[in-house]
Amino acid sequence: MELSGIYQSIEDDLARVKEYLRSIIKVDFPWLSEQLDYVVGGGGKGIRPALTLLSGKFYQYNLQYLMPMSGSVELMHTATLIHDDAIDKSVSRRGRATIYKLWGEEPAILLGDYLFAKAGEFVADTHNPRVIKLFSQTLATISSGELNQFFSAYNLKQTREQYFKKISGKTASLFSLATASGAILSEAPEKSVKTLGDYGHHLGIAFQIVDDILDFIGTEEELGKPVGSDLTQGTLTLPAMLLLERYPEDNPVKRRFENRDDRDNIKQAIEMIRNSPIVDECYLVAAEYSARACRNLNELPENSSREALFELAKYVVARKK
Amino acid sequence: MELSGIYQSIEDDLARVKEYLRSIIKVDFPWLSEQLDYVVGGGGKGIRPALTLLSGKFYQYNLQYLMPMSGSVELMHTATLIHDDAIDKSVSRRGRATIYKLWGEEPAILLGDYLFAKAGEFVADTHNPRVIKLFSQTLATISSGELNQFFSAYNLKQTREQYFKKISGKTASLFSLATASGAILSEAPEKSVKTLGDYGHHLGIAFQIVDDILDFIGTEEELGKPVGSDLTQGTLTLPAMLLLERYPEDNPVKRRFENRDDRDNIKQAIEMIRNSPIVDECYLVAAEYSARACRNLNELPENSSREALFELAKYVVARKK
Repeated sequence: MELSGIYQSIEDDLARVKEYLRSIIKVDFPWLSEQLDYVVGGGGKGIRPALTLLSGKFYQYNLQYLMPMSGSVELMHTATLIHDDAIDKSVSRRGRATIYKLWGEEPAILLGDYLFAKAGEFVADTHNPRVIKLFSQTLATISSGELNQFFSAYNLKQTREQYFKKISGKTASLFSLATASGAILSEAPEKSVKTLGDYGHHLGIAFQIVDDILDFIGTEEELGKPVGSDLTQGTLTLPAMLLLERYPEDNPVKRRFENRDDRDNIKQAIEMIRNSPIVDECYLVAAEYSARACRNLNELPENSSREALFELAKYVVARKK
Repeated sequence: MELSGIYQSIEDDLARVKEYLRSIIKVDFPWLSEQLDYVVGGGGKGIRPALTLLSGKFYQYNLQYLMPMSGSVELMHTATLIHDDAIDKSVSRRGRATIYKLWGEEPAILLGDYLFAKAGEFVADTHNPRVIKLFSQTLATISSGELNQFFSAYNLKQTREQYFKKISGKTASLFSLATASGAILSEAPEKSVKTLGDYGHHLGIAFQIVDDILDFIGTEEELGKPVGSDLTQGTLTLPAMLLLERYPEDNPVKRRFENRDDRDNIKQAIEMIRNSPIVDECYLVAAEYSARACRNLNELPENSSREALFELAKYVVARKK
């Protein structure tokens, strides 16, 4: 199913969240307004805000609080992407030039900070101490996850456990915030908060594994950025780890990490992974997490949102971009 | 009066805040722990956390909430400094190597984000929606103030109004958060919240003007960083503005901004400012703001904290570093 189909039951409210996000453009400084306009007009799949709204549909659907929460989750995501792009010196994302490319590194740092602040203002509007605290804890988890990734760059000796810890920090934590906060703000019983939080966590892991696969098998057009970006930045992901396991001695990933300038090794690694069962193996792991995400969903009240969460778990593994 | 004397009435609690701040060092990742240890061991004058505690002394002194607030204000300050140093590529601060210098730009960005997050966790522990919202609004003001400074770098055509707007955003806003939050968390009446918030704002302006003066007349040892850093980074501050007004045609600041590589012009500008009445003129402006800060303090209950706030306003103008 396409995302638009999955989002059907929350379509109008998701549009409202987008409007709500656009409200941040109105600021005193023209250049800031221009940058914000560019940032919130960037598209994106909107999975995180959708997760908050969908997770809020099982008990009291308090749109008054779910909307700022939803906006907050999306803004935090956007801010981390802007900082990531400045750190990785990435010039394109989602098929558009990055803030780093357009305005430079310094504005990218400050604009990211500004968006963290606006995300913080939004979450404050939920008036809910628990999600406010969760919000900051999640940001701490994400940034330490990113630091972890930075300090383990070009390190060939990474275990699978470390990989899952890394993607859990940098991706799954925000997915989990999105779903758990939706549940909390809809006054869900504690058991449902846990079910939805776990759903978000496992979905996030599956999502990131697929991201890491697509970085090898996608096209630049689909990805909106160059293929093989992870290897370019020295980030060891699941497909590359499996390739290392398969060919421990002579391996393009190993050569790439030991001789950082060699572009040919990236091309070769991409080719080898594409033409091997590694892709299927990785998809199996992603599918396992997607299934784990859905494990307890049936405990939730039956409604169109529950159906959407099941569909989203399928979509996350099947998506091509 | 020395700072230690001014802090006397809150000495023990300020020490508790420092302990509280040190608690963030305990994390899973050894390199993060090492960085945090370095960061919270950095000294600093502690004016912002002290302002929160002092401002909380007029009504209900709720240390349970004032402590996380105080820690939050200090961490937000620390995080902005780490990002500033990465942006300005500064290698030293407070006489020590910066995070940027020690670990590089990328960790500086992420560590700053991490500290914003921890500051957010701390402020969440106040359980006070109003200060939580103020906290995020202040971060938005600071980062847009810094963006403003970045985009106006090397621009000679800046009005005094723009200068005050800039330092109001980047410095006074956090001082004002420190005092207003102390008042709010001690259940002060609205009038006292305003009095203390205004005090913080004007004190912050005075503090920043003196910072901008010291950047010209201090020694590298006193400043803990090179003299003339502002001109080096193309930041036009009050002393340089007055020099431009005095010599509109042939002026080392003008030459410096038009020909960015010329170090001699910085030296010459420093000399000209030091040997002119400009320094005194700037101190007069700072003293005016310091006086304005104290204007309504007498409306507050008389106690040792009120005395300390008066003394702090004097200190801020008299300080040499």
